[in-house]
Amino acid sequence: MSATPFTFGLWTVGNPGRDPFGEPVRPRLSPVEIVRLLAEVGASGVNLHDNDLVPIDATPAQRDTIVGEFKRALRDTGLRVPMATTNLFTDPAFKDGAFTANDPRVRAYALQKTMRAIELGVELGATVYVFWGGREGTETDASKSPLDALKRFRDALNFLADYVRDRKYDLRFALEAKPNEPRGDIYLPTTGAMLAFIATLDRPEMVGVNPEVAHEHMIGLNFFHVVAQAIDAGKLFHIDLNDQVIGRYDQDFRFGSENLKRAFFVIKLLEDSGYTGSRHFDAHAYRTEDEDGVWAFARGCMRTYLILRDKARRFQQDAEIQGLIGDLRARDSLYDGPTAADGYSSASSAALKSRTFDVTTIAGMGRRYEELDQLVVELLLGAR
Amino acid sequence: MSATPFTFGLWTVGNPGRDPFGEPVRPRLSPVEIVRLLAEVGASGVNLHDNDLVPIDATPAQRDTIVGEFKRALRDTGLRVPMATTNLFTDPAFKDGAFTANDPRVRAYALQKTMRAIELGVELGATVYVFWGGREGTETDASKSPLDALKRFRDALNFLADYVRDRKYDLRFALEAKPNEPRGDIYLPTTGAMLAFIATLDRPEMVGVNPEVAHEHMIGLNFFHVVAQAIDAGKLFHIDLNDQVIGRYDQDFRFGSENLKRAFFVIKLLEDSGYTGSRHFDAHAYRTEDEDGVWAFARGCMRTYLILRDKARRFQQDAEIQGLIGDLRARDSLYDGPTAADGYSSASSAALKSRTFDVTTIAGMGRRYEELDQLVVELLLGAR
Amino acid sequence: MSATPFTFGLWTVGNPGRDPFGEPVRPRLSPVEIVRLLAEVGASGVNLHDNDLVPIDATPAQRDTIVGEFKRALRDTGLRVPMATTNLFTDPAFKDGAFTANDPRVRAYALQKTMRAIELGVELGATVYVFWGGREGTETDASKSPLDALKRFRDALNFLADYVRDRKYDLRFALEAKPNEPRGDIYLPTTGAMLAFIATLDRPEMVGVNPEVAHEHMIGLNFFHVVAQAIDAGKLFHIDLNDQVIGRYDQDFRFGSENLKRAFFVIKLLEDSGYTGSRHFDAHAYRTEDEDGVWAFARGCMRTYLILRDKARRFQQDAEIQGLIGDLRARDSLYDGPTAADGYSSASSAALKSRTFDVTTIAGMGRRYEELDQLVVELLLGAR
Amino acid sequence: MSATPFTFGLWTVGNPGRDPFGEPVRPRLSPVEIVRLLAEVGASGVNLHDNDLVPIDATPAQRDTIVGEFKRALRDTGLRVPMATTNLFTDPAFKDGAFTANDPRVRAYALQKTMRAIELGVELGATVYVFWGGREGTETDASKSPLDALKRFRDALNFLADYVRDRKYDLRFALEAKPNEPRGDIYLPTTGAMLAFIATLDRPEMVGVNPEVAHEHMIGLNFFHVVAQAIDAGKLFHIDLNDQVIGRYDQDFRFGSENLKRAFFVIKLLEDSGYTGSRHFDAHAYRTEDEDGVWAFARGCMRTYLILRDKARRFQQDAEIQGLIGDLRARDSLYDGPTAADGYSSASSAALKSRTFDVTTIAGMGRRYEELDQLVVELLLGAR
Repeated sequence: MSATPFTFGLWTVGNPGRDPFGEPVRPRLSPVEIVRLLAEVGASGVNLHDNDLVPIDATPAQRDTIVGEFKRALRDTGLRVPMATTNLFTDPAFKDGAFTANDPRVRAYALQKTMRAIELGVELGATVYVFWGGREGTETDASKSPLDALKRFRDALNFLADYVRDRKYDLRFALEAKPNEPRGDIYLPTTGAMLAFIATLDRPEMVGVNPEVAHEHMIGLNFFHVVAQAIDAGKLFHIDLNDQVIGRYDQDFRFGSENLKRAFFVIKLLEDSGYTGSRHFDAHAYRTEDEDGVWAFARGCMRTYLILRDKARRFQQDAEIQGLIGDLRARDSLYDGPTAADGYSSASSAALKSRTFDVTTIAGMGRRYEELDQLVVELLLGAR
Repeated sequence: MSATPFTFGLWTVGNPGRDPFGEPVRPRLSPVEIVRLLAEVGASGVNLHDNDLVPIDATPAQRDTIVGEFKRALRDTGLRVPMATTNLFTDPAFKDGAFTANDPRVRAYALQKTMRAIELGVELGATVYVFWGGREGTETDASKSPLDALKRFRDALNFLADYVRDRKYDLRFALEAKPNEPRGDIYLPTTGAMLAFIATLDRPEMVGVNPEVAHEHMIGLNFFHVVAQAIDAGKLFHIDLNDQVIGRYDQDFRFGSENLKRAFFVIKLLEDSGYTGSRHFDAHAYRTEDEDGVWAFARGCMRTYLILRDKARRFQQDAEIQGLIGDLRARDSLYDGPTAADGYSSASSAALKSRTFDVTTIAGMGRRYEELDQLVVELLLGAR
Repeated sequence: MSATPFTFGLWTVGNPGRDPFGEPVRPRLSPVEIVRLLAEVGASGVNLHDNDLVPIDATPAQRDTIVGEFKRALRDTGLRVPMATTNLFTDPAFKDGAFTANDPRVRAYALQKTMRAIELGVELGATVYVFWGGREGTETDASKSPLDALKRFRDALNFLADYVRDRKYDLRFALEAKPNEPRGDIYLPTTGAMLAFIATLDRPEMVGVNPEVAHEHMIGLNFFHVVAQAIDAGKLFHIDLNDQVIGRYDQDFRFGSENLKRAFFVIKLLEDSGYTGSRHFDAHAYRTEDEDGVWAFARGCMRTYLILRDKARRFQQDAEIQGLIGDLRARDSLYDGPTAADGYSSASSAALKSRTFDVTTIAGMGRRYEELDQLVVELLLGAR
Repeated sequence: MSATPFTFGLWTVGNPGRDPFGEPVRPRLSPVEIVRLLAEVGASGVNLHDNDLVPIDATPAQRDTIVGEFKRALRDTGLRVPMATTNLFTDPAFKDGAFTANDPRVRAYALQKTMRAIELGVELGATVYVFWGGREGTETDASKSPLDALKRFRDALNFLADYVRDRKYDLRFALEAKPNEPRGDIYLPTTGAMLAFIATLDRPEMVGVNPEVAHEHMIGLNFFHVVAQAIDAGKLFHIDLNDQVIGRYDQDFRFGSENLKRAFFVIKLLEDSGYTGSRHFDAHAYRTEDEDGVWAFARGCMRTYLILRDKARRFQQDAEIQGLIGDLRARDSLYDGPTAADGYSSASSAALKSRTFDVTTIAGMGRRYEELDQLVVELLLGAR
């Protein structure tokens, strides 16, 4: 399993099962315990928010002790920390946002907390730093100008990118979008919006995205398409795998547990595109589970990934599937005129404008997508 | 009413009330009739798809006659055509997409059709050209690589932007996103995704967006935030106003008819930001209506806009509302340290890192957003 | 304000602002303090879960002390407790459900806890007892047969109804549906499903529903229609007013804060139908608020209700609105044949089958609903 | 394949691919052709709306000729017509509803049309008659009282049930719910609401439901739970199988094509519960398809059903899965006190109230649902 960089967050397998209507159901595991148990189930890395490891009120000495023990556990197990991030949402100070809060002290405190958390991440070896602005939003749009909010968020990222450069850290930023929850509406609600925002930053080359299945599925977007746009833009720096029913509270279900077909296309894309980053599972066990259930959950995430990866290989080798795809491609030879892919010239546009197309015939040809999709269904079901 | 550039599409007030389960309920009006009636109700412009005016199978001579009559009606009424677009969705040829179709003949035909439609638009005086790729998507992700699709769409836009420059047309492109319907999933499903895509084009400066209320509301995004991001990026080239319930088929309801509060913040933003483009109503009358109902619908769109614009002015003048906002701003003076807005320096980051914040006190302060939001509600209800 | 029975739950104005991603932001108020403050803002009653008042681990003596103090506060303020309910969701024991849990000990414990809570409610004067089965659901449908779950839930309600009769309590049950959260799927997810379920109980006459705006809006149902079905069935025993954006986590926003038009039709229906029960606000203040914000929130709920009630009266008095409605009703005289409302006879069916309808003419008549809806919009905006 | 009663509607495999944005892409097949082709692919029955077979403007003589040819095709192929229904949505006459329309002539015409369509269905051998009130709704709630609408709908069903009894037809009614589309909101929007409504009819024993996957999935309900409630109430008279993404336009996708796991649990329930009615596929081929694609689609629906039925059998035989379920059931023996299932007595309630539960221990036990769900995933993927 070592070939596939499977990672989990301290907050995922360490989730104690608290929810808006209920108290925790599982005892909290210490970070060191989590590292040892993750190694046992076959993960290759562990990610963290600053306060997953170091309590927000720890003294510097306490911090150093905690970090020292954690690094020892990493050394002992061989686990890496490929990604780190800042908790800018749990403390009541962030109730109106962090980088976009109306109170300038909150914005400054968020910057400070992030600089310190970046140092922690770098110390642990992280090369990707995630920004999830869970509180950067509103319940009433009377409270804040979204233009101000975008400016404040941009100022903060520019400042922090400069900080990373200034400190010569080998670290890239990955922005994670979410449309809502815990705020009524969160700014830059989709990976698409984040990609657009990156183009407005001072150092766009340092910044990519961290798409999460659940965050795009919540509003019913096609995550396969979302990831493809990130890849097309050269911005897929990290990925959060889990599952989620459309139109619901943030569920963070075990990867593949809701929709196997959608999961399949995503894995196929990751594998086909040569993505080499972490396969990070940002999910947690059902609240019905005790600690054994947590590790069953973790094994399930990885196992489903591997089964689907195998299905992706079979897709490439399946003669009938490839036959249908080949037939589609063969239609390319039916056209010999100018194309957009060849680039524009006055001559090509003139030639194209005067060309005659047999539109009725072209329109009448079936695409055989029902057959193709059914073959995928049967491949997934193990029925071929 | 002349001060506000209210526009309607030929396809909006001309909508005959056909739907997936029912036949048309209203006779089709001719484009010339629509122009005269739009002028009567007080619109300042009319927009169109090529085939709203010129049937797809018209001969060049028929086309010229039709266009001549239409221009006469424009002259007679003083209506303008600020925006034009291409119908790349009605004909069966486009059943698998237009610019992104798997069949290269369809892609070439779509280019040809768009070049001709651009000429029509320019002839009628349009300076904004909208691209809504309603068929650029999939029902099964086995059928098409989204990476290929993005490349094909980009090639087409690059080609067409070159064409416009080559012809020296005074025309900008505005991309309109929609997440689904009529395809299972449409590529670049949000205005955010479109803004990101624009950054990958050869002539990004020529290309902006045309956000539509219904298309973002369908998946529950906050349209006020969406428009703000477009404004922040300097890309709000056009806007489609209508209304829509979240999580449903494309409804294109009368502007403001579903959610007055959300409509209010959008109008406030348009007016406050100095947006000077069209207020285009991309909506249609209920299917229960006859032609009189259509014009009641059109008047209602404009009237609600004007009432909400007046509410936006009152918002600025309301002492209690402005008092609460002023109190929020007054907190700016509570912080005198380094900020992200001031830009990064090693010194400022050092100062910030060592600063002490009274986090508990800051966290404990109420924001009074319930009061503020309630005042907005009462302002909207005419109760203050 | 005394004429309108406005009530709040201890858990609503007492909500400390904890959410899945954040810690509490407000200190907890004691039940006695809440009673006094509710009286101050003008509420007429206060509702509660057993553990809102009596901690789950209180001794009988502690319970009696607490209840005694609470009753004194009620006496002092004149507030009533019209409704009570059981907390069957916070304790980890209920992580797999209460009445429908797979473990029989949990089911038995849930019965016991409910009998005790019913006694508490009766002692405080409640005449409506609400059942919200927040944990009665699943994350994986492999875990439980929904047929077993329905049987278990029915058995429990039958048992408890018998208990109430046996004790001669003057108490009716009101079932509250919710589609999901905190469980992946909750059984009997809509008020419609609950109404159907009631028909399968041993004592259906004792059991009605408690529809909640947010719980039906979450999945995009029309709450006005939902409440109408409950009224039509004689089953509207209680109502929970708040607000919610479709397709999101449970928001419990201030009544009317999301969608004024939908709120208007609900209030109009309550007032027109002669509903005399509580107007219960099951909502809480934004997490950005301190305690002052909580009371601003509470006042806002009631004020918006009263404004909308006034709009409902104006709707009845508006000549133009009533003119359009009158025109619709006048069409009744255009038909003099047999109707379904007259009841069936062989003769009437024969007469009806042989009748000729001028379908084209009937179809062509406009309904003027755009005008009517626009008048409602303008009424709501205070623009008429 | 003959053992499983697979049926399709004339309107499903006969769907020509028209949608709100596009023209038909396939030629219409005649009903007789459809019957022959359905027999070829292995269906056992065909269902229809009156106007799928007989045009709305056919003379009685034309009707008889058409019906005669159709019956000959049924005889030749052995196909049955187990279900029939009325088209009360296509004609503009129904633009404001049929049984609930404000115009009494429309209500009367809808009754007439339904009586005639019932006769047609009975003549063809149908024993289930479906009511889908696609136009029974509103876009603006100012237009109609939902209390009036429910009364009108009830009157119509009572009348028609009497008519069926009077004519001594062997026919049961099955009500089909849909939340919206083509109307903004449709009355009785869920199967739950329909079940509740049935309890208010004069002849409830004659009336059941026809749940459709897509109509419940549109708003994100759990269809497995929905069908279970219908079975629990003895009201599952018919079922419409297809697939649909949550929160979207009505897609009517091939059964199983969106979510295999949800489809699996539904099939498992149908098979385990002994449901003997039709497995009706109310779906249609993608618009990208020609006629060959339509039959590939039809074969795919049936094939996926059979594969999932086989998976349901394996679920029952899988030692590990059954072991986990057995462990859950074994907990039943851990409790020997009074239960709700045993029924109420004063003694049992007293015993239960005084019993002591070790709540902490019970709460701490894991349920192993993650393991169980993962086994289902692997069973579905053919990985065990």
